Amino acid sequence: MNNTFSFPSEQKEGVYQAIMQRRDIRAQFTQDPISEELLDKLLRAAHHAPSVGFMQPWNFLIVRDLATKERVHQGFLEAHQESAEMFSEEKKTKYQGFKLEGIRESPVNLLITCDRERTGPVVIGRTVQPTMDLFSTVCAVQNLWLAARAEGIGVGWVSIIHEEKLREIFNLPDSVVVIAYLCIGHVTHFPEMPELEKAGWLPRLNLDELVFYETWGQKK
Amino acid sequence: MNNTFSFPSEQKEGVYQAIMQRRDIRAQFTQDPISEELLDKLLRAAHHAPSVGFMQPWNFLIVRDLATKERVHQGFLEAHQESAEMFSEEKKTKYQGFKLEGIRESPVNLLITCDRERTGPVVIGRTVQPTMDLFSTVCAVQNLWLAARAEGIGVGWVSIIHEEKLREIFNLPDSVVVIAYLCIGHVTHFPEMPELEKAGWLPRLNLDELVFYETWGQKK
Repeated sequence: MNNTFSFPSEQKEGVYQAIMQRRDIRAQFTQDPISEELLDKLLRAAHHAPSVGFMQPWNFLIVRDLATKERVHQGFLEAHQESAEMFSEEKKTKYQGFKLEGIRESPVNLLITCDRERTGPVVIGRTVQPTMDLFSTVCAVQNLWLAARAEGIGVGWVSIIHEEKLREIFNLPDSVVVIAYLCIGHVTHFPEMPELEKAGWLPRLNLDELVFYETWGQKK
Repeated sequence: MNNTFSFPSEQKEGVYQAIMQRRDIRAQFTQDPISEELLDKLLRAAHHAPSVGFMQPWNFLIVRDLATKERVHQGFLEAHQESAEMFSEEKKTKYQGFKLEGIRESPVNLLITCDRERTGPVVIGRTVQPTMDLFSTVCAVQNLWLAARAEGIGVGWVSIIHEEKLREIFNLPDSVVVIAYLCIGHVTHFPEMPELEKAGWLPRLNLDELVFYETWGQKK
């Protein structure tokens, strides 16, 4: 069914293409700079995410300084080594073979944080689900990621680094928590499939198997 | 700067329009049904969210049964009353005046969950940031929300209900946590501004004030 408020077909297609062609970019960054204008468009997309109680708890910390990127990369290396030890021997070798970040190669790194005290202690919609402000900020990450894909810009989310390390490097206040550390840049190409899918690490799940009706576990 | 991988302008515009025109819908649902085909498109958009370690930890539980919606609504009412007591007297009256859910009016409710044990205890990218699977699932929520906006479909996120209540109603297993309870349906219209902004509860923040450079608090 079409309806009054649906977008024209090309615009609708854009939304689905951004969703389907978005990739986590690690190995495909080029050195081409990201213009201030473009970065501002991406941040504006993030800033228009849904936010619990209209709290807008996010901040955006733009990193271009190579010395800072090196410190973050060092933090990644430490956490990466520590993480490798958690896998079985067979998986460990495969894990170590993956390229999992593009911190130094990407022209822009972006730390997205959530200020848990932004609008005071009582926030509409966060009263009984205290993680809602964190989740709002994740929505901002996804907005940025999709806008970036539409602009032909790659984004990679680096989660193999301790939050403590990022807090220390960027001198975050106590009320502020890390949500995402992103690498942003132009790319040589967007891989056709997620890299872990292509590498046979895990398969794409069948959507039908993930959908239930009326109660947990009930199929149609 | 344009580049090889950027979308055609109409498609790009679609992404930005979905981001800017997306609203949290509570009071504008109509009774028109959502077709299976359309719902499947929205779930497919959610299913193509980024997921840490390609874990795809989500499930989608579709609710159309009014008796179930009534139970969820009862859970909302209890949490809503409890929440009202947290506000100062002045804000409490205003809080109580807001319409904050469309559980019974929307034709489809959707519970989106995260199975924390989906692919075993060790997940690439979740080794030192244990909330990453939750965050992946939030990205799925945002994908669905944007695809819905492009289709002219309204979505509202109900967070004023205790997770325990939802676990009980839907009989969730221990490894599965609630990420979002959504109301989905056609709408009479999409409000021009977020409702809490329009009501003067909180203002839209100035993006420039939220952006820092190189370290916390540093302006350009």
